Amino acid sequence: MRDVSIIGIGQTPVGEHWDIGLRHLALEAVRAAANDAHIDHADALFVGNMSAAQIGGQTNLGALIADFVGLRGIEAVTVEASSASGGAAVRQAYLAVASGALDFAIVVGVEKLTDVLGSSAVSAQMTATDSDYEASHGVTPLSAAAMLMRRYMYEYDAVPIDFAAFSVNAHANAMNNPNAMYHSKITPEAFVKAAMIAEPINLFDAAPAADGAAAIVLAPTDWAKSRSNGSVRVAASSIATDALAIHDRHDPLWLRAVELSINKAYQQAGVSPRDINLFELHDSCTILAAMSLEAAGFAQRGMGVTFAARGAIKRDGSIPISTMGGLKGRGDPGGATGIYQIVEVVQQLRGCAGENQIAQARIGMAQNLGATGATAVTHILVRD
Amino acid sequence: MRDVSIIGIGQTPVGEHWDIGLRHLALEAVRAAANDAHIDHADALFVGNMSAAQIGGQTNLGALIADFVGLRGIEAVTVEASSASGGAAVRQAYLAVASGALDFAIVVGVEKLTDVLGSSAVSAQMTATDSDYEASHGVTPLSAAAMLMRRYMYEYDAVPIDFAAFSVNAHANAMNNPNAMYHSKITPEAFVKAAMIAEPINLFDAAPAADGAAAIVLAPTDWAKSRSNGSVRVAASSIATDALAIHDRHDPLWLRAVELSINKAYQQAGVSPRDINLFELHDSCTILAAMSLEAAGFAQRGMGVTFAARGAIKRDGSIPISTMGGLKGRGDPGGATGIYQIVEVVQQLRGCAGENQIAQARIGMAQNLGATGATAVTHILVRD
Repeated sequence: MRDVSIIGIGQTPVGEHWDIGLRHLALEAVRAAANDAHIDHADALFVGNMSAAQIGGQTNLGALIADFVGLRGIEAVTVEASSASGGAAVRQAYLAVASGALDFAIVVGVEKLTDVLGSSAVSAQMTATDSDYEASHGVTPLSAAAMLMRRYMYEYDAVPIDFAAFSVNAHANAMNNPNAMYHSKITPEAFVKAAMIAEPINLFDAAPAADGAAAIVLAPTDWAKSRSNGSVRVAASSIATDALAIHDRHDPLWLRAVELSINKAYQQAGVSPRDINLFELHDSCTILAAMSLEAAGFAQRGMGVTFAARGAIKRDGSIPISTMGGLKGRGDPGGATGIYQIVEVVQQLRGCAGENQIAQARIGMAQNLGATGATAVTHILVRD
Repeated sequence: MRDVSIIGIGQTPVGEHWDIGLRHLALEAVRAAANDAHIDHADALFVGNMSAAQIGGQTNLGALIADFVGLRGIEAVTVEASSASGGAAVRQAYLAVASGALDFAIVVGVEKLTDVLGSSAVSAQMTATDSDYEASHGVTPLSAAAMLMRRYMYEYDAVPIDFAAFSVNAHANAMNNPNAMYHSKITPEAFVKAAMIAEPINLFDAAPAADGAAAIVLAPTDWAKSRSNGSVRVAASSIATDALAIHDRHDPLWLRAVELSINKAYQQAGVSPRDINLFELHDSCTILAAMSLEAAGFAQRGMGVTFAARGAIKRDGSIPISTMGGLKGRGDPGGATGIYQIVEVVQQLRGCAGENQIAQARIGMAQNLGATGATAVTHILVRD
């Protein structure tokens, strides 16, 4: 298996892009990544997307986007794992380049979630729950997370303000990210006063559904070494899964897919949690951020919120998270989110994260979750 | 890159499965393939599906099916390329095993298209056309094919009965396939009298949308050689694309994606058209079968229908196609179709195709198309 590196990154601002179509958003990100990589061709395109079929009436984005970005004819597919679609697409591209079957692969995550009625967007999101046993009873990914948060608060004697640190940190970091959706600070006091959207999850607790596109270019590390400056090696790539329906899981408060996926990644990269300089985790709600820190080995079980409240997740903490704003502050464009996470890790490892630069960042990790943890995709990136 | 073999196959009957859910259909096929391969575990599951989000309200089939078939926790994703989703999923699994990242991969294609209103099914199918420039004007994959057929008839001076040979052959072969949807013969006389569904495409011209699931198990060839009898090597795997919108293509009557994909496959396998003993092509309409034979190098341009009418596509012809019924006779369960094609090629290469056995079949090819040829996935399989 060949080593694989990321030689280019690109992203659009995250927000409400009602004036621009899905394929145009994708083009912007692909063009930026290709320019960054100094390439004008690729062997394959992998698209991460979760909702275009339901919201945009469009499938086969692989062929569509390949054509629109000027690469008509090349190998192209769409990879889907609900909100982990972006990370999952990177995994397939990684395997393709690692195998030697092809050399240059572009991965683009693209999603448009905001230019439909809220009810249509929620219907699309609900397809990520178990349709027979959850969605049919009205469960959405957000209401499922709300049930997890309530149980977590009961089991570990937590109160809502304990969760504030995640959103405060995410918004503070988003302030300095020009591509972030929000550029406003949140205080713990404002956090606990925010309107409820799925009790106990409030408006400042949950990441906003958004539009956006992000792209990366993968190439063999040997090629990258000989030419590019600023390439970053993919030291590990892994996927693990769990039951979709939360009631089917052995232990609803433990993200088994996170644990399995991250342990495979630590093993492949030959690192442990203490080697990781920053961690872009899937903070679609604060409860998922807390549980991710626990299952990933950074915080002890039930201590995720305390760990965050002590400042460990801040830019100067022991494990900085959401360093460019995370899903909460940068915004959450569904199947594009996993690519944004990787783009942001690359920015950090290149030393190009501006005000948000993590000092001496050399090893970064990104983890993209499908819905409430049914899928976990982990990538560990290293600046050699 | 390691050689990869198919060590197990499984399929459900194709038809209208209103009494059984998507996950149960998938389970039947996976269980059959795992039993055939004599394995009780796998490293990863790749799902081919195109319409579950729109028709079944379910995404993230990777995690869902992995869990339901008893493999909770393993790596799993869904691969989508409209009606080429099945073939595209095989390609990803092939790359994963070829890379050395994992050893045993199950690929399952599953689709339920019949237990919704026809209008819902057509809406889902329309997402495979260009939503901005085709679907928005009422174009469906079938009506797009009808326009191609009309143009083909004009350019090459063909008449409807010239296309009959494809359906007559498909139904004759389906007679002996217990998993086929139809077990009734078609005559050329009945063909030309059949009711129009999208003029000039009639009922006996187009493959029926259906429910079904098919699965294969991939493993390294070195492992397969040491243990299994009846394994078949994947000598080539390739994907190519074209513009989704037919009006965007340079030449609407030439399936460029078929040509690109199949030439890559011939090159990888080191074979030419005359080495292929059977060809499971994507006969969703007779016009696509004719155009596929031309772009694949079997018939000259404009001669696809004459080639078929002369008997070349029959079981004793120069290039037998649709040997177990094809999409027309076996039925077309969307994202599962590409896996059925590969299962049927394996049956032939193992010498287990019963009445439909192609004598001395050693090299077989399967090609799965997305919509009207925007995606073409080709696999060449060899019995060493």
